[in-house]
Amino acid sequence: MTQQLANRYLPALDATMRQVIANAPLNGAEDFRVMLSYPLGWVDENNQPYPHQTGKRIRPILLLLSTEAAGGDWQSALPAAAAVELLHNFSLIHDDIQDDSDTRHGRPTVWKIWGRPNAINAGDALFASAYAALQGLAETDLDPKTILSIWAIFNRTNLELTRGQHLDMRFERQETVTVEAYISMISGKSAALVSACAQIGALIGSSDEALASHFAAFGRDLGIAFQIRDDILGIWGEPEMTGKSAATDILSRKKSLPVLYGLAQSNELGALYRRPSFSNADVDEVVERLNAVQAQEYAIEQETRYFQEAVQALEDANPQGKASQGLISLAEALFQRNV
Amino acid sequence: MTQQLANRYLPALDATMRQVIANAPLNGAEDFRVMLSYPLGWVDENNQPYPHQTGKRIRPILLLLSTEAAGGDWQSALPAAAAVELLHNFSLIHDDIQDDSDTRHGRPTVWKIWGRPNAINAGDALFASAYAALQGLAETDLDPKTILSIWAIFNRTNLELTRGQHLDMRFERQETVTVEAYISMISGKSAALVSACAQIGALIGSSDEALASHFAAFGRDLGIAFQIRDDILGIWGEPEMTGKSAATDILSRKKSLPVLYGLAQSNELGALYRRPSFSNADVDEVVERLNAVQAQEYAIEQETRYFQEAVQALEDANPQGKASQGLISLAEALFQRNV
Repeated sequence: MTQQLANRYLPALDATMRQVIANAPLNGAEDFRVMLSYPLGWVDENNQPYPHQTGKRIRPILLLLSTEAAGGDWQSALPAAAAVELLHNFSLIHDDIQDDSDTRHGRPTVWKIWGRPNAINAGDALFASAYAALQGLAETDLDPKTILSIWAIFNRTNLELTRGQHLDMRFERQETVTVEAYISMISGKSAALVSACAQIGALIGSSDEALASHFAAFGRDLGIAFQIRDDILGIWGEPEMTGKSAATDILSRKKSLPVLYGLAQSNELGALYRRPSFSNADVDEVVERLNAVQAQEYAIEQETRYFQEAVQALEDANPQGKASQGLISLAEALFQRNV
Repeated sequence: MTQQLANRYLPALDATMRQVIANAPLNGAEDFRVMLSYPLGWVDENNQPYPHQTGKRIRPILLLLSTEAAGGDWQSALPAAAAVELLHNFSLIHDDIQDDSDTRHGRPTVWKIWGRPNAINAGDALFASAYAALQGLAETDLDPKTILSIWAIFNRTNLELTRGQHLDMRFERQETVTVEAYISMISGKSAALVSACAQIGALIGSSDEALASHFAAFGRDLGIAFQIRDDILGIWGEPEMTGKSAATDILSRKKSLPVLYGLAQSNELGALYRRPSFSNADVDEVVERLNAVQAQEYAIEQETRYFQEAVQALEDANPQGKASQGLISLAEALFQRNV
């Protein structure tokens, strides 16, 4: 099902995004346009065509499905779908600098190739490009007032993203993090944009603020469940599926939900986490202690709870047509994914 | 005159900007709000009131004057004035990381206090805040279509800023830079935002796109002249006026306009510039060689040319009322400044 959705939307989405980047006023700086095309997966670092898919484009697919499920024409939502994907890629570029990450989608990160100053600037340009894409809504039949509402959601989402990013970085240095604070962090860092996708899609499809708020709730809960699944895979995921080494989040001491739960249950785990560095044996011990307190089961419970709330919010939204089945399939695929 | 303008506009501008930052959805991250208030000059790094002025707020003053001179009410333009100042501060935060600059307005830079990852995020948040401020136009009497036009100018300006920043960074490593390429770079990095200020201000004041395009030309030429004056001060400015050490731009080997001119005129200067490092005596020799080829005179000629074109464009715009004198005074103050 998810592949069918991709086949339906992705060529038009890709064309819209390419048009935005092609139209960016970058005269005299074509080498800079390469730094924007590379993270979007269109070219390699030498500006040669790159034949592999990079991102999964989950956010724009969710947005376009929401437009259809709210009774609208998905093609009128393409500018917004391009905007959320460009925004997501901006945040990844800056995130990779902040986390000192060398690879993304199996390729060197932007900063690794062109250095941090250029990567900061490339991120800023994709941020601006996201707005330039969204502005394309002004060329559709959409009422200008609805466009201004969508713009406001987008602005708020961007501030939420920086809030989540801030908390994520602060929690790394903070000894105690409550589950509540953690959920607040991922509400900003992960769920805000997923929520905005569903809400903006529904607004474009219906111009109905009340209906769109049900979609927003659906997206928010789905985004939280999505992040918790990420947390589970970061510890118990199969390396051959996730493409990461085993227990990668333990090695980087990420304070993900299972770890926070474990730290609250087990003093020994706290003592382990305070060690200045981790050996492979330490990583194994952490996983064993997490298993002993059933941290994975706890995380799956939480994920399931948010997933069920998402499904409930979607029912409240009373989605229409084939796209309603598409939304459920997408949510289920994200809920059960191993990768 | 410039002080009178400041007294007239700045309290309301400040209140608008503070409201935008106070309204940013940063719950649970009040420590992050400090990282946004600090570069705006409101607090010190410990969130205590900071009694000194930091930025000169030239851009929002220009915007508000343009609104009045185009026949409008400056108070309706406050959201846009706040937006351009927030945007300017975002660009300074990222610029300081990219240039590895330790101080700004006589204080440690954001990255110097909170580290690069936090500073990248603080810049991103001010970028998003600039849009949140601009969105305040939707609460005024302005026609939604005019707001969408202003939004489009803002988006284009942001892409221009990243283009200029890219060229500026690339030119540092590039042996030969033509004057034409240099003007293209500063058109993005410095003049695009100044131009947008005048254009957006005029659009708010008149909703007249043709009139606003004269203001845009005025701002563009003024912005270029402003940057060339910066270049002159960076070499020949009085340290006690500029607050920088003498010939600071020579020491950092900035390829500013007088240097580009000098490099084209003098092979000896080129040989000097290729040395791996500069002694104080080398700096003196560079300045002597620049003086010998009359590089300062050349730069003043160029500055004057752009200033005169700015004045001509302003005449074409036929500015109204007292604000028209204010615009001329502001332009003259920028043209003749020593600091």
